[in-house]
Amino acid sequence: MKAVVYQGDEKIEVLDVEKPKLLMPGDAIIRVTTAAICGSDLHILHRMPPYFVDPGTIIGHEFVGVVDEVGSAVTSVKPGDRVLSPGGVNCGHCPACRSNLVWACQNGGIFGHGALGGDLPGAQAEFIRVKFADVGLIKIPDSLEDEQVIFVGDILSTGYQAITGCRPSDHGLIKPGDTVAIFGVGPVGLCAVATAKVYGASKVIAVDSSASRLEAAKKLGADMLVDFTKEDAVEAVLQATDGLGVHLAVEAAGFDVAFNNCLKAVRPAGCVSVASIIGTPVQINFAEIVAKNITIQAGICNVIHMKEILALIESGKMDLRPIITHTLPLSEAERAYEIFEKRIDGAIKVLLKP
Amino acid sequence: MKAVVYQGDEKIEVLDVEKPKLLMPGDAIIRVTTAAICGSDLHILHRMPPYFVDPGTIIGHEFVGVVDEVGSAVTSVKPGDRVLSPGGVNCGHCPACRSNLVWACQNGGIFGHGALGGDLPGAQAEFIRVKFADVGLIKIPDSLEDEQVIFVGDILSTGYQAITGCRPSDHGLIKPGDTVAIFGVGPVGLCAVATAKVYGASKVIAVDSSASRLEAAKKLGADMLVDFTKEDAVEAVLQATDGLGVHLAVEAAGFDVAFNNCLKAVRPAGCVSVASIIGTPVQINFAEIVAKNITIQAGICNVIHMKEILALIESGKMDLRPIITHTLPLSEAERAYEIFEKRIDGAIKVLLKP
Amino acid sequence: MKAVVYQGDEKIEVLDVEKPKLLMPGDAIIRVTTAAICGSDLHILHRMPPYFVDPGTIIGHEFVGVVDEVGSAVTSVKPGDRVLSPGGVNCGHCPACRSNLVWACQNGGIFGHGALGGDLPGAQAEFIRVKFADVGLIKIPDSLEDEQVIFVGDILSTGYQAITGCRPSDHGLIKPGDTVAIFGVGPVGLCAVATAKVYGASKVIAVDSSASRLEAAKKLGADMLVDFTKEDAVEAVLQATDGLGVHLAVEAAGFDVAFNNCLKAVRPAGCVSVASIIGTPVQINFAEIVAKNITIQAGICNVIHMKEILALIESGKMDLRPIITHTLPLSEAERAYEIFEKRIDGAIKVLLKP
Amino acid sequence: MKAVVYQGDEKIEVLDVEKPKLLMPGDAIIRVTTAAICGSDLHILHRMPPYFVDPGTIIGHEFVGVVDEVGSAVTSVKPGDRVLSPGGVNCGHCPACRSNLVWACQNGGIFGHGALGGDLPGAQAEFIRVKFADVGLIKIPDSLEDEQVIFVGDILSTGYQAITGCRPSDHGLIKPGDTVAIFGVGPVGLCAVATAKVYGASKVIAVDSSASRLEAAKKLGADMLVDFTKEDAVEAVLQATDGLGVHLAVEAAGFDVAFNNCLKAVRPAGCVSVASIIGTPVQINFAEIVAKNITIQAGICNVIHMKEILALIESGKMDLRPIITHTLPLSEAERAYEIFEKRIDGAIKVLLKP
Repeated sequence: MKAVVYQGDEKIEVLDVEKPKLLMPGDAIIRVTTAAICGSDLHILHRMPPYFVDPGTIIGHEFVGVVDEVGSAVTSVKPGDRVLSPGGVNCGHCPACRSNLVWACQNGGIFGHGALGGDLPGAQAEFIRVKFADVGLIKIPDSLEDEQVIFVGDILSTGYQAITGCRPSDHGLIKPGDTVAIFGVGPVGLCAVATAKVYGASKVIAVDSSASRLEAAKKLGADMLVDFTKEDAVEAVLQATDGLGVHLAVEAAGFDVAFNNCLKAVRPAGCVSVASIIGTPVQINFAEIVAKNITIQAGICNVIHMKEILALIESGKMDLRPIITHTLPLSEAERAYEIFEKRIDGAIKVLLKP
Repeated sequence: MKAVVYQGDEKIEVLDVEKPKLLMPGDAIIRVTTAAICGSDLHILHRMPPYFVDPGTIIGHEFVGVVDEVGSAVTSVKPGDRVLSPGGVNCGHCPACRSNLVWACQNGGIFGHGALGGDLPGAQAEFIRVKFADVGLIKIPDSLEDEQVIFVGDILSTGYQAITGCRPSDHGLIKPGDTVAIFGVGPVGLCAVATAKVYGASKVIAVDSSASRLEAAKKLGADMLVDFTKEDAVEAVLQATDGLGVHLAVEAAGFDVAFNNCLKAVRPAGCVSVASIIGTPVQINFAEIVAKNITIQAGICNVIHMKEILALIESGKMDLRPIITHTLPLSEAERAYEIFEKRIDGAIKVLLKP
Repeated sequence: MKAVVYQGDEKIEVLDVEKPKLLMPGDAIIRVTTAAICGSDLHILHRMPPYFVDPGTIIGHEFVGVVDEVGSAVTSVKPGDRVLSPGGVNCGHCPACRSNLVWACQNGGIFGHGALGGDLPGAQAEFIRVKFADVGLIKIPDSLEDEQVIFVGDILSTGYQAITGCRPSDHGLIKPGDTVAIFGVGPVGLCAVATAKVYGASKVIAVDSSASRLEAAKKLGADMLVDFTKEDAVEAVLQATDGLGVHLAVEAAGFDVAFNNCLKAVRPAGCVSVASIIGTPVQINFAEIVAKNITIQAGICNVIHMKEILALIESGKMDLRPIITHTLPLSEAERAYEIFEKRIDGAIKVLLKP
Repeated sequence: MKAVVYQGDEKIEVLDVEKPKLLMPGDAIIRVTTAAICGSDLHILHRMPPYFVDPGTIIGHEFVGVVDEVGSAVTSVKPGDRVLSPGGVNCGHCPACRSNLVWACQNGGIFGHGALGGDLPGAQAEFIRVKFADVGLIKIPDSLEDEQVIFVGDILSTGYQAITGCRPSDHGLIKPGDTVAIFGVGPVGLCAVATAKVYGASKVIAVDSSASRLEAAKKLGADMLVDFTKEDAVEAVLQATDGLGVHLAVEAAGFDVAFNNCLKAVRPAGCVSVASIIGTPVQINFAEIVAKNITIQAGICNVIHMKEILALIESGKMDLRPIITHTLPLSEAERAYEIFEKRIDGAIKVLLKP
């Protein structure tokens, strides 16, 4: 089958590789119908620490597809079912899974991340093997096309968590009527915009420097757009909120300056939710936090909200298709990566069709 | 001034009465610009227990207006300000108020309810005196017309509470993606429909027998309408929810059969929220509740969500104008009561303009 | 092996029966070291609806023991491990289990309840087969004796839930400093007393007519005892709480009068938690509930708190041994049932040692 | 009257000053019966930024006393009542107060902090004027002596908040059975130890280098003591929690190293609660936080839990008297400050008796 393979030297290539086989009774083989390129795929490509994979690794962890084969123990899906999957796997029965901390699963992994992700071949391919199929796979309602659900298992769950909270016991860092600012509306930030809307935010403020991303934020329901190259973002947020600041500020840019802006833009007793991975150390002045009684959350996506997200999509309350800017055949993956990375033609998310 | 006065013998009349005066330093006099007729006004009219008022009582508790005069201690509003008010008053400093249990205020009352409500003359009048003005009155943003905010202080707060929960510590009996059934979409039920939408419900099912009310529910965002004279409502709800039932069932009809239908229509670990006053004793089979681990809430409206409701209205997320079917001059109040009571021309809410 | 067997005609007998065998890869065989007699065992004995079991059924669902054998798929326990178990089983992977609604498991059951409980032979026996062993069984720390943990899987989880709340999202119907009244301090009510203490209740009021049970409540930390045959229980509760009533009233007696007393004894915005099964229909006056904005919960025990209960026992914060009044050999089960049922010598809980 | 007055040059002196008078109708004059010295009094003494007060300022904000006089508007207390007070004042009616964010009151202040605290003369004096007396003052039950309640309004509310959470909507960062580590058991940390106990923590680990403070922690119920000069504190915490870490780590030492130890000692999905003011910038590695999905809170004490704390003290569930190591007459305040600052004879809290 065809697959996007890391070749070393910061290069990928579409190669013919062996089709995956069922290895364990709980496995399923999925025929990928749509895959997406994620920011972390670029990290892998450029060997940003700790994203080191060996040459020969199949990349990709965002996909939907059709069940091709299932192991003897699989009961919840059968060949022919259209399914979506989290970007990784979890076993469902270890202490972490039983506590709904699925990202910390002792037997889990992430597709297409090499040894770092438990050596699970990736999804930018014609077929992919999914372990613990009964735990992770969810059937896609017939009424929904791939493009509506492709983000559920990764970036949309991540953006969703930025609003709903990262602990299993959290159920919303905001309540209806509250205000939210999203610093950075790349793919994850845009998913946070859409989530803030379904949570009933009365005002969602999108902050970025990219016109195409701000435009996408507007399509997803952002009430106010701030281009931080043209105005002071913190000032703009404060002015839009009677000088008090927002109830929730989301850091989705990945920079310490964005995090510190969140601290400034949030109101007393508000929250700052970090939906990115800030690679550099951040210097924090606690006096500022203490003076406002701020709650800060940061974390890997704990993929436990997929069913409610799917219910929202099915009912028409969430539609992330506006962030899809390009769709290419899998065979043109190299070009697709280039479009995604250089943001050619305002690229936000780029899909691959095997 | 003109006012709607209960005359005894189940009759009201529009009479000339004395304009109210400031009595205490915290008082304000409001010139009423719009008032509404509420179901409990009919209870008063027909002397349903415990709604007994003496002849001569000015009726009405839903209104918005313009500040005419303020007492010496009032600091938050001034003459000329457009304001809205809860349907009653609370002092803001008794133990109940300090615990955010404002309906239980030791010094509070309800407008237009006679001795039962602390002898506070009502709002279907040209002017009304509002005690504890700093505590209850809220300025109306210029961008909003009376019709957009007239329900905030009473039926909308009641319908809102049915979804958000009746304890100050509750913040939502549902989360985004959940399903809700509203049994009875009279004015309060319709407000619950609108609230369920801002809470991100993936499916809101409205149950009633009135075509005009079901139609209004649809305008407010209900995803599915059930006319219980044409189909089994519980069965319809179960079918629409994979046989499991809804996450939240709201009883807004005021009948024991509706309450028992809620118990049947709710899923395991779900909630039944009672937004009406069921006048007759209700016989409950606990085995049914126990088998599903149901949480039941019922209560008088605890008017603590007005500011967030106002934020939602201002941002365009809530608009209850579709439930306004008639507007008459105050002088035609008798006719207005008849339209409201007999549901002439599909009447839902009837406004009075002094 | 010896086992307590229902013989028909409201009689049990200790008989020699076949030792259970492993039937599925996830099974474990447990050698029972201690079992207890539960109120529902009496329901089975006397064929109270719906507790009908066929003659020949082994009774009992409260037990601890030592793993004797495990099936090929069991990984979390091994022969020789001391373990405790919920009173029933759940599969861990059906939609209900994945939502932490384990009592509603599609593949679950209750030990010793005949067809009603999924035909799982009971625990008042020398050995018992436990399905889904990896899901339900928990190892007992060496430092704890059987008597300290025997109630964790059934009545203690039930009493715990009465305080912590019956929805997975609940985490405490009270907070530290709140007041609690327990109407009925039989075994479950006594477990609720102990739980209220670990939740930091400032005042726990136990209401009953039995001197021995009130005495046990005192040993478990109740701050105030009310014998309802000697004083008006509601009046006593109100007096002890400045006339306001308790924050949480627990109905653990199983009678409608107790439930209605809970409604009267609870304060505005308080909770009534039903920890019993009230067999008769209950007539409710909603006006009373509405006037106080009460939240009511009732439900089967959703056994999801065993690990935290075990942590509390291990740390010395909970010790239910004071409710154990009698211990007999399994061979004397008939006598043990008589002692338990007739409350001979102030019997509360009666243990059986195989 | 006598009062402790800042004299400039990092010196205090007990001087004769004018007795305070009622200035506004909501004022009360309190005859101080017991005052305490707080760590921030030392900051004032040594002019640590931003604690600058002018010479002549009366210091002190921890006190209890007897009402001496009340203004015409005061209704909740009367001369002769024993009362306790928060360490500052809040108005009760501004938007912040109405949202239960009392520390952010627009009209508030802190006693004895000079211009920084709104120029409210302090409590280490024979008398003190308390503004907004109806809002802040709470009557002390007769059964309680000054020493039992002296800390309620300041350090105990601060330590309490470290466990219960800093947002009004928080109700406990832990649940019964959870584990807690307190890094730094000075006065505030010790109050957090006592609070963790009433929240039902199964294991409370106190970390410090002072034998007398660790000993006090033990008296207050700490289950495990770690002297970080003798063992690796993080390692010790991890070992005591099966390698997972605690559910909640409290930073009460005021050092960045303690904060970073909290991050290392907390388990996935756990919380780090900062109960100190860390004066220096803290460098944070977000990768560490992200990998564990940690929630961080920090904030000024939002004094909204005094009544529940008082209920806990009255019921015997909390007793902070073990942290009182010295009591001196007000006239010996200079010596008292020295004992407190130099920790003479293991000093923890030092009281002054006017």
